[in-house]
Amino acid sequence: MQMLTDRETADIIDTAAEMAAAARDATLLHFRSRGLSADTKEADRFDPVTVADRLCEERMRAILARRRPRDGILGEEMGVQAGDSGLTWVLDPIDGTRSYLCGTPTWGVLISVADASGPIYGLIDQPYIGERFEGGFGLARVRGPRGEDRLATRAARALSEAILMSTFPEVGTAEEEAAFRRLSRQVRLTRYGTDCYAYALLAAGQIDLVVEAGLQPYDVQAPMAVIEAAGGLMTDWEGRRNPQGGRVIAASCPEVHAAALEILRG
Amino acid sequence: MQMLTDRETADIIDTAAEMAAAARDATLLHFRSRGLSADTKEADRFDPVTVADRLCEERMRAILARRRPRDGILGEEMGVQAGDSGLTWVLDPIDGTRSYLCGTPTWGVLISVADASGPIYGLIDQPYIGERFEGGFGLARVRGPRGEDRLATRAARALSEAILMSTFPEVGTAEEEAAFRRLSRQVRLTRYGTDCYAYALLAAGQIDLVVEAGLQPYDVQAPMAVIEAAGGLMTDWEGRRNPQGGRVIAASCPEVHAAALEILRG
Repeated sequence: MQMLTDRETADIIDTAAEMAAAARDATLLHFRSRGLSADTKEADRFDPVTVADRLCEERMRAILARRRPRDGILGEEMGVQAGDSGLTWVLDPIDGTRSYLCGTPTWGVLISVADASGPIYGLIDQPYIGERFEGGFGLARVRGPRGEDRLATRAARALSEAILMSTFPEVGTAEEEAAFRRLSRQVRLTRYGTDCYAYALLAAGQIDLVVEAGLQPYDVQAPMAVIEAAGGLMTDWEGRRNPQGGRVIAASCPEVHAAALEILRG
Repeated sequence: MQMLTDRETADIIDTAAEMAAAARDATLLHFRSRGLSADTKEADRFDPVTVADRLCEERMRAILARRRPRDGILGEEMGVQAGDSGLTWVLDPIDGTRSYLCGTPTWGVLISVADASGPIYGLIDQPYIGERFEGGFGLARVRGPRGEDRLATRAARALSEAILMSTFPEVGTAEEEAAFRRLSRQVRLTRYGTDCYAYALLAAGQIDLVVEAGLQPYDVQAPMAVIEAAGGLMTDWEGRRNPQGGRVIAASCPEVHAAALEILRG
């Protein structure tokens, strides 16, 4: 991991907070807007998700251009911008566009910073609730409607007592779905539809496992930083820390991770 | 429908608001509490969902005993209490106990008032977000993090453009699940895991359909009041307004309701 001074980590944390605040405004501008999305011919011209996604990433990039011009950027909407500081900001302006489209407050803004080793700091922000889960540089905290609290994953427990989350019941390919179903049959409770919010709940010690497939780097890096800071782990289905995404398993602790991985691999 | 004076409807609305405020405190007392629910032997003695459920209903009943002692009560936790006013309060202190258990903010407190015709007023409250959806006696409003807004269901559209929600992919019996899947294949997007929040989103004009089975009177009556006030409709799968619950379909408008019902019936 790259050595950073306290002054530099403080600047990164502060920059991320400024970006997350700008992202809240941009994403809420069209969230739950009425009559704009689907029924009329206007739909062809105005898709609130796409508009909000782009506006949000533009505003975050403008802050980086001003405050940290030497860092690289990888954003879901506007691709890669090279840097020369050794640090890359990895951005997903709206993770969970389907939730956004439905008005459900479980989508989020993902902001993270990676060095050559992968993510070293990240946050998951839910603008409508006004809730931010943040991890890295010694921080592991949530700030939301009930003030600030420490993030810490749950203690180890048997799979038969564990709570599993995934965005869709159809997890990926047929083979991936079959693996997921094997695991789902072993746990106490499986819940769907939470997008990045599932990783936040894992970091907050509410659930034990998140399993997904087909993820991109910008989907996984902020959750990875937050979960690791909270004491959990997030790997691919081969058990490797993998900032590139793909098949992902996040777990509260090594014991639950190992037990779930064994079942996923069949 | 029973004739009520303006003074009486104002008192009902005010009583419901007092109950919902008390319910917020009671349900948030244990929401996202850590280490209490599952791993140790304490689990056998303390289940936060059950404790919060009962505490919440007790507090709501205490308010009714003081303010409206002649009304009847039907509560999920403590059953039926007869009244002689012709009005019955129908209460579900925590609808979506699985969401509550996972920390997901899509559970809710359901409060409604019925006369012999069924629900005439109701509210869906999400305590963590601080959001309340309310309908009846001329009201159709949401009050939440972004202030107050009017509730109104979406305009009619083709099923192929509609958004459908349900709490589980496994909707009920095998036959009910098959009917749900037929419908799910016809719509643009199906989302799971939202409990009573799905009905709130329908009333807020964000989605088009909610389909569930095996519901109880206390699950359906508050959503029915809110959805009807917002311009939508909520019936059983035979198309009848049915405050008893069972198989439920809620729709934004008669056109979407009729089209979906035809497919559910096979």
